[in-house]
Amino acid sequence: MKKLTSPPTLTDIIQAHEAIRPYVHRTPILQSQYFNKKSKSQLFFKCENFQKVGAFKMRGATCATLALSESEKAKGITTHSSGNHGQAVALSAKLQKIPAYIVMPENAPQIKVDAVKEYGAEVIPCTSSQRGREEKLAEVVKRTGATFIHPYNDYNVIAGQATAAKELLEAVEDLDTILVPVGGGGIISGTALVTHYLSPKTKVVGAEPIGANDAYRSLQTGELQKNETVNTIADGLRSDVKEKTFGIMQTYLSEIIPVPDEAIIATMRQIWERMKIIIEPSCAVPLAALLQEVHRFEGQRIGIILTGGNVDLEKLPF
Amino acid sequence: MKKLTSPPTLTDIIQAHEAIRPYVHRTPILQSQYFNKKSKSQLFFKCENFQKVGAFKMRGATCATLALSESEKAKGITTHSSGNHGQAVALSAKLQKIPAYIVMPENAPQIKVDAVKEYGAEVIPCTSSQRGREEKLAEVVKRTGATFIHPYNDYNVIAGQATAAKELLEAVEDLDTILVPVGGGGIISGTALVTHYLSPKTKVVGAEPIGANDAYRSLQTGELQKNETVNTIADGLRSDVKEKTFGIMQTYLSEIIPVPDEAIIATMRQIWERMKIIIEPSCAVPLAALLQEVHRFEGQRIGIILTGGNVDLEKLPF
Repeated sequence: MKKLTSPPTLTDIIQAHEAIRPYVHRTPILQSQYFNKKSKSQLFFKCENFQKVGAFKMRGATCATLALSESEKAKGITTHSSGNHGQAVALSAKLQKIPAYIVMPENAPQIKVDAVKEYGAEVIPCTSSQRGREEKLAEVVKRTGATFIHPYNDYNVIAGQATAAKELLEAVEDLDTILVPVGGGGIISGTALVTHYLSPKTKVVGAEPIGANDAYRSLQTGELQKNETVNTIADGLRSDVKEKTFGIMQTYLSEIIPVPDEAIIATMRQIWERMKIIIEPSCAVPLAALLQEVHRFEGQRIGIILTGGNVDLEKLPF
Repeated sequence: MKKLTSPPTLTDIIQAHEAIRPYVHRTPILQSQYFNKKSKSQLFFKCENFQKVGAFKMRGATCATLALSESEKAKGITTHSSGNHGQAVALSAKLQKIPAYIVMPENAPQIKVDAVKEYGAEVIPCTSSQRGREEKLAEVVKRTGATFIHPYNDYNVIAGQATAAKELLEAVEDLDTILVPVGGGGIISGTALVTHYLSPKTKVVGAEPIGANDAYRSLQTGELQKNETVNTIADGLRSDVKEKTFGIMQTYLSEIIPVPDEAIIATMRQIWERMKIIIEPSCAVPLAALLQEVHRFEGQRIGIILTGGNVDLEKLPF
């Protein structure tokens, strides 16, 4: 896999898919008669909650790591994350037999720290502020020479994330719409690109929590906006979009639907109860968006990417 | 499908499978690298938690209903149950377009009552004692002429439940062992029969909560035992075995492993966290049994039937 310096082409995404194949699962696609009826449409759920580390992040982290030179690989990879991307970087490093350094806030849940350590990565504690994380990361890079793998503002990461939608489009014909959650924009920009290449008539629509709606405002104003505060249960979607993901979203994305937390929680619970699968709150956002605007999507064939399944069972929102 | 008056033959089970096919899902089989490593064996999970109504009970109820005569069907079917069998009888009736009458204790959770009503069945409240249920059921039978579908002491029900293991054996070759939870004995006696027919070298092993261990004691003593008290989180496994299931178990079952509730709860949680699927406590019993006796099953290829996924999210044991 080569290092990408511009938005991935179709060839780049095909190569990314070939490259990551030994390291990731081809996840199943589920259907639900209950939600078909409720949404008056036909739904196809791409289950990245069953992906390695329990989230699509494994695709992008693997792809970015594979693009490193041998000398870069020897020095290892690093990131700051208490969430799915940290796990994905740690496991990618393990599978590619290189070192990993994960900067994690001191107050990160012990279970997440343990999981990263189980993958053989070194955990470096930092204060929980954005500045604390970045300073500690800079120290690690200086000390080790490891390469920073950004969770989304990286064209190789985006190419990796695009492979989830590629698999969906290969398995399900004639989708009218694909609904994807929006956080930093990695999965949605990858999805928008690959859908443009493989099925240009299929619309890609984002779904974003109202309490972290920087992407919605960025698309509205045409300029990158930040979340001054974040207030949402969907912990995977609190990041700000950045220039690489935003550039792709501006060109290829149809729209973003904002969703309130009450709807996210209610939909998450319904998916647990009806589909018998564990999804994290972020995953529920696209279906919540659809259920609040049923009339607009009635009769369509709709793909939904369920992005991850990592939840703290001690802190369920219901 | 004919009415069975003796333990199902292979032909009976094949016919049952053909007959119920339009009414049930062929459920997926999942694997887990985490549990393979932990159990030092190779595991294949047959996911009846994804079955219609969220449990294997749909297979048996459908099979028993299909065996009724046209005049019996016209009068409908009935059972007493606040659990998965009640839902299964209600949905079987709906799909076969006949009436259903479900006797449910007055203190049954409203969500279960609502689900049965959603399937179009009539709900008849009773007191929650065994006697209260049976008296009310007798009244319903007298009033409506409906046929009582027993949850497990019925050869057509057993033939239906056997189809889950049949699908597992068709999909996975060379299983050394199949582990199955034991409640009233419907799923395990069906599994033991079909495994004897299709893969006689495969052992069928039961797993039962210590707090409702009537089947274990019955096999030990060679005589039907009852649970004088039940004390287990595994609400699907509190029933007593009866003569039809016990007869089959005596002939074809290798053994039953008793499992304490602490292990059931811990294993249930691990399945949720690692496999990202929702299972009810009863389903965790076989894997908990395996994990407490790893040395005995080391290196084997093992099928595990995950029997259902209906849990009250308000009352999780963790």
